Amino acid sequence: MALTIKDIASMAGVSKGTVSRVINNNPEGVSEETREKILKLIDEVGYVPNKMARSITVAETKTIGLIIPDVQNPFFPQVIRGVEDCAMENGYTVFLCNSDSDIKKEQKYLYTFLEKRVDGIIINTSGDLNDKKLTALIHKSNIPIVILDRKIKELSRYPGVYVDNARAAREGVSYLIENGASNIAYIAGVKDVYTVEERLKGYCMALEDAGIIINKQYLSYGGYNIQSGYERTREMLSHNPEIDGIFAGCDTIAIGVLKALRELNKKVPDHIQLLGFDNITMSGEMVPPITTVSQPMYEMGYQAARMLLASIQDKTIHQADQYLETDLMIRESTRKKQVREEI
Amino acid sequence: MALTIKDIASMAGVSKGTVSRVINNNPEGVSEETREKILKLIDEVGYVPNKMARSITVAETKTIGLIIPDVQNPFFPQVIRGVEDCAMENGYTVFLCNSDSDIKKEQKYLYTFLEKRVDGIIINTSGDLNDKKLTALIHKSNIPIVILDRKIKELSRYPGVYVDNARAAREGVSYLIENGASNIAYIAGVKDVYTVEERLKGYCMALEDAGIIINKQYLSYGGYNIQSGYERTREMLSHNPEIDGIFAGCDTIAIGVLKALRELNKKVPDHIQLLGFDNITMSGEMVPPITTVSQPMYEMGYQAARMLLASIQDKTIHQADQYLETDLMIRESTRKKQVREEI
Repeated sequence: MALTIKDIASMAGVSKGTVSRVINNNPEGVSEETREKILKLIDEVGYVPNKMARSITVAETKTIGLIIPDVQNPFFPQVIRGVEDCAMENGYTVFLCNSDSDIKKEQKYLYTFLEKRVDGIIINTSGDLNDKKLTALIHKSNIPIVILDRKIKELSRYPGVYVDNARAAREGVSYLIENGASNIAYIAGVKDVYTVEERLKGYCMALEDAGIIINKQYLSYGGYNIQSGYERTREMLSHNPEIDGIFAGCDTIAIGVLKALRELNKKVPDHIQLLGFDNITMSGEMVPPITTVSQPMYEMGYQAARMLLASIQDKTIHQADQYLETDLMIRESTRKKQVREEI
Repeated sequence: MALTIKDIASMAGVSKGTVSRVINNNPEGVSEETREKILKLIDEVGYVPNKMARSITVAETKTIGLIIPDVQNPFFPQVIRGVEDCAMENGYTVFLCNSDSDIKKEQKYLYTFLEKRVDGIIINTSGDLNDKKLTALIHKSNIPIVILDRKIKELSRYPGVYVDNARAAREGVSYLIENGASNIAYIAGVKDVYTVEERLKGYCMALEDAGIIINKQYLSYGGYNIQSGYERTREMLSHNPEIDGIFAGCDTIAIGVLKALRELNKKVPDHIQLLGFDNITMSGEMVPPITTVSQPMYEMGYQAARMLLASIQDKTIHQADQYLETDLMIRESTRKKQVREEI
């Protein structure tokens, strides 16, 4: 068991208060001789001040809680790294929890964070928090929260860091259309998830912009994994062989799409153009490298942590949402734009 | 600021001890009427017991600290997930820290973990902990530690979870040789890192087994990233065009190797066979899919957490190292073994 401040005090023959003042660099009423004696003792016995005990008095634990669906989804490692780098620069440590977008787990973790008195919470969740008691608890606890990437109806009073998914998808899909695609499928992520539906809006807007009629058969929901992209694409093309463009809901799905197209002997981009979303490292390493909407993943994590720390410092939750820029990363899975010669 | 047990006691007009007994389900000396009144009040005002305050008394925080080099390296997400799943099943929460294998950061995090009184630590580091004062502190703190994947000289008294890197590399490289490669390069990770050197041993053993003379020019150290694999391969082949097999120190490096070979018009596996290490998801999605040594990444994390929780429970650090099995995952970046017809 770790040594306590009481142990040090009794070894040094002084009061707990004296030891505490020495540790906290408060010289009041402590002679230089006593100070040195105590510091030497602390060094010799290997005492480390208990920051958790201190947290009871000053009501801060210098910890933040981060809930994401799954660290194994390649979107999240950079996000996590951004959160942690910002936290570390400011002396905070991060609890990482994977919820699998399972509401039960999310609720359990939120409750655990409250019990552990984290100073703030960053949450990315795909579902709604339908436990009214929990959301009431969160509101009452007055704990700063920042929402990451996906809006949560029940926590709409808290600020968040987002990208404009609709606009980004619209830009990407318009690019496919400009380069000759007109029968464009959307191989999407999980139905009813905020970002998935926002991207659907953008997809529809791009088609409307170009006067293309929306075909509901060209929409297919699935999971955020390679297998889902692969299966949905095979299915989609067996019913709709006229498809000449695919918008994949994320790059991981796009990698599965590419695999299916390879097996079906569909050339990318000659037969079918492919657009991804996220710009995970691997999207640029595929054959062909995948054109994708680049999200500032690291920056999203970093800014979420910055926003949270500001809330913690100001003891307020009132901040505006922050929207970060996306970027269309043009690679070889889409056709080169024709240079129009105009006289 | 969160409500305290004192607030609840004063609102209910009872002592702190009474509230505490109700929260901890201790009926002693508390009437059913009082109990119900307090529970109703807790519910109404949204009080969450402070587990960190409790930790001062019972000397446990139900937290564990995990230090890895970088969550963005695709080896780690599965490891992290394994640690967290096991922790969560047992009621523990995980602090995640990225050290970039920077000794200063590692030491800072270790000290932070001691300050925060985590119940145990899992650490993966590529360097040595050359801060004697810190290692002395760790030893004195008596905190359970489990080493993950890479041995640390200064923490050799603690148990760890490993794979037999030398044996696994020997098996993999032997497979390249059996299928006709004889001029095999090792495009390695960072020099002097435990796993990198163990894999080098295995590489050398495989060559010796086959009576092939070791050529030091065929060894090239670098980083754990695509760019490093790419650059080292281009450099290696410009000096040694006779190379007909490459053992990449990890799959991320192998993806860079593949990119270089594609640019150099070297066919895989016809001209050059390629072997990776780890079996990250993407290794199976490349063209061609990469033959690799499969490490049980999730299981390594899970077992490390299990071992740590056992140490925490038994208040002992004396456990044997655990070695998990690897598996040679044969894909299309190596030639098919010739079926020998023997009469």
